[in-house]
Amino acid sequence: MFKVNENYQKLPGSYLFSTIGKKVSAYSAANPDKKIIRLGIGDVTQPIAPAIIDAMHGAVDEMGCAETFRGYAPDLGYEFLRSAIVKNDYQARGCDISADEIFVSDGAKSDSGNIQEIFAQNNKIAVCDPVYPVYVDSNVMAGRTGTYDAKTEMWSDVIYMPCTMENDFVPEFPKETPDIIYLCLPNNPTGTTITKAQLQSWVDYANKIGAVIIYDAAYEAYISEENVAHSIYECEGAKTCAIELKSFSKNAGFTGVRLGYTVVPKELKCGEVSLNAMWARRHGTKFNGAPYIVQRAGEAVYSEAGKAQLKEQVAYYMNNAKTIKEGLKEAGYTVFGGVNAPYIWLKTPGQMTSWEFFDYLLENANVVGTPGSGFGPSGEGYFRLTAFGSYENTVAALERIKKL
Amino acid sequence: MFKVNENYQKLPGSYLFSTIGKKVSAYSAANPDKKIIRLGIGDVTQPIAPAIIDAMHGAVDEMGCAETFRGYAPDLGYEFLRSAIVKNDYQARGCDISADEIFVSDGAKSDSGNIQEIFAQNNKIAVCDPVYPVYVDSNVMAGRTGTYDAKTEMWSDVIYMPCTMENDFVPEFPKETPDIIYLCLPNNPTGTTITKAQLQSWVDYANKIGAVIIYDAAYEAYISEENVAHSIYECEGAKTCAIELKSFSKNAGFTGVRLGYTVVPKELKCGEVSLNAMWARRHGTKFNGAPYIVQRAGEAVYSEAGKAQLKEQVAYYMNNAKTIKEGLKEAGYTVFGGVNAPYIWLKTPGQMTSWEFFDYLLENANVVGTPGSGFGPSGEGYFRLTAFGSYENTVAALERIKKL
Repeated sequence: MFKVNENYQKLPGSYLFSTIGKKVSAYSAANPDKKIIRLGIGDVTQPIAPAIIDAMHGAVDEMGCAETFRGYAPDLGYEFLRSAIVKNDYQARGCDISADEIFVSDGAKSDSGNIQEIFAQNNKIAVCDPVYPVYVDSNVMAGRTGTYDAKTEMWSDVIYMPCTMENDFVPEFPKETPDIIYLCLPNNPTGTTITKAQLQSWVDYANKIGAVIIYDAAYEAYISEENVAHSIYECEGAKTCAIELKSFSKNAGFTGVRLGYTVVPKELKCGEVSLNAMWARRHGTKFNGAPYIVQRAGEAVYSEAGKAQLKEQVAYYMNNAKTIKEGLKEAGYTVFGGVNAPYIWLKTPGQMTSWEFFDYLLENANVVGTPGSGFGPSGEGYFRLTAFGSYENTVAALERIKKL
Repeated sequence: MFKVNENYQKLPGSYLFSTIGKKVSAYSAANPDKKIIRLGIGDVTQPIAPAIIDAMHGAVDEMGCAETFRGYAPDLGYEFLRSAIVKNDYQARGCDISADEIFVSDGAKSDSGNIQEIFAQNNKIAVCDPVYPVYVDSNVMAGRTGTYDAKTEMWSDVIYMPCTMENDFVPEFPKETPDIIYLCLPNNPTGTTITKAQLQSWVDYANKIGAVIIYDAAYEAYISEENVAHSIYECEGAKTCAIELKSFSKNAGFTGVRLGYTVVPKELKCGEVSLNAMWARRHGTKFNGAPYIVQRAGEAVYSEAGKAQLKEQVAYYMNNAKTIKEGLKEAGYTVFGGVNAPYIWLKTPGQMTSWEFFDYLLENANVVGTPGSGFGPSGEGYFRLTAFGSYENTVAALERIKKL
């Protein structure tokens, strides 16, 4: 008789955003006259930039002609895309990363869920708290997190690094020594980040204790301050301790196009074993490449026209961030983030829990946000709003919130 | 100090098709004047059908307009595609499968590699021998296969079901009881298949012993005989024991477009645990949907124009299969398959090993095929040719082979 992976049964509740989706659907069904504004899930709203649309049309045409048709892509991504990535995202910033260290994928969510597979089960993971749920949940599914305590909402074998207003949202080196450290910077959900000097201290720490940093740089395009690193490889020594995950979802609006990449430096080793070779083997065995059309779209992100158009798109969302932040301040809220990231993290008013505030905002302002506690216990009492709505909706949402 | 997943180190050599690719590249580099014909990897060569190209252009345009832009897709696939699948691939064949049992993915390779994750580690898998390497390799990576014996090329904890000319390539119920049974029908690599009655006996067997069948139906579109099932759900009782994997790569040429789906019936349970719910959780946590443009392409596969165009495309490849099969017979080879599948499986001549014949064919006819032994020990002494080349190349390859 077959047996199922029992770790799945340990997962409490459903995936955060599925729960929110269901709550909002139920409210909508009961109140069909209300116009709901969604500033919850980190999904973009602006259309794909013209330079990228052109590139996709061109690639679709190629797929329709025998002479230019493309079948299976190279396992690790087309050379044209990997070279564009290396040139623009790394060499231009002085990071010595080469094309055979880039692995093109169908998105950073897949990569952040799958990357744990190449590690042994008895590694101890450390995560910031609050944190993007995929890091923890994918480790739960792999049986790496011990037992769940429903009261503290914590796993016995996970090291939590609280990031709250008390420590300016800067994670501190944990007391217990971790093997794998997940860092998402600029941070989802808090919208805050750390300086390059602070990141360097994390790289030094990881090298000292022999840990791997899984560095999620999905929000890198939103960095506006000078002293913040765009890639962990800007830090000395990162190539022996860090894997970097990148997404095209936020800088180019690819949430529905699906493209990402992961950097695994060849210098990153466990004894004689190359993690680059392991990830290549994982890709070669369980993945068949991102669509050709989508890889051409990714290439267009790095064209001159593409870059100019996307700079405008990022500025558009960051103007929303400013609108939210200033509006909330005016309304008397305590707010964080929104400077180097498209997320605003607010302290819930009047001792409300995160889910109480979720219901309050949904019912009274018809605005959907994300409860901070959904990202981990230290998120309790906080709430996330995203800058990815349209400008008009963002302004309207803030008008409603100010009136509460 | 972090530790890696040591199961990866147990994998012998590299992924089969990577090895072939390297061998061919080396030969090409050393013999730049030779025109190589590739009938090795199962990659298609015909361009995407016009109805699908039109649908993709339409979807690209939608992504470029604010009013029609689509962000994150529903985790499990767009309703328009899941409904089209249910209507055409199941209800039309009398199979009672509903849209919430369909999980749209980026391809059957990903699904066939990932599906083992929802099962416990101590399940015993059974595979046909020879077999598509992903089934075994993904289980090796998960630590489910025991130790590898380089001499027999077998894993200690895998049940092998030899499929050779001696048993007409029909797998027999193994002596040892399996928990998970992988069946790919019509079969890759042998190009053979079994009757619906024979498949029914596998379903009955699985239900009797409490095993799950992972049924890979990637080549279903090539079935030409009446008494062969297009879906395992044509068999009575399959919904309590079978998961079906489907690909758009072979029926619609989507190897570079990337789309597939998996069917997990709600009736499939382990005690009270629903495998449908587990796979939904896996999708929700580690995957973010197939691209909108690609899902619209998938929808067009089921349009009237799409169906007509793809029927022609399948006929084109099956004409190649006939050309190969008849040509090889004329040249004195013993050949199998090619009637319900786009693969021809031949017995290597003169006691050559599969790899010896690979080198012989590459060097003397400049034709690339796939060594049968690369698919498992019982594939030794066999060789696979695919019908996915162009007609001109297929004819030219056969002319060369006949002259050997």
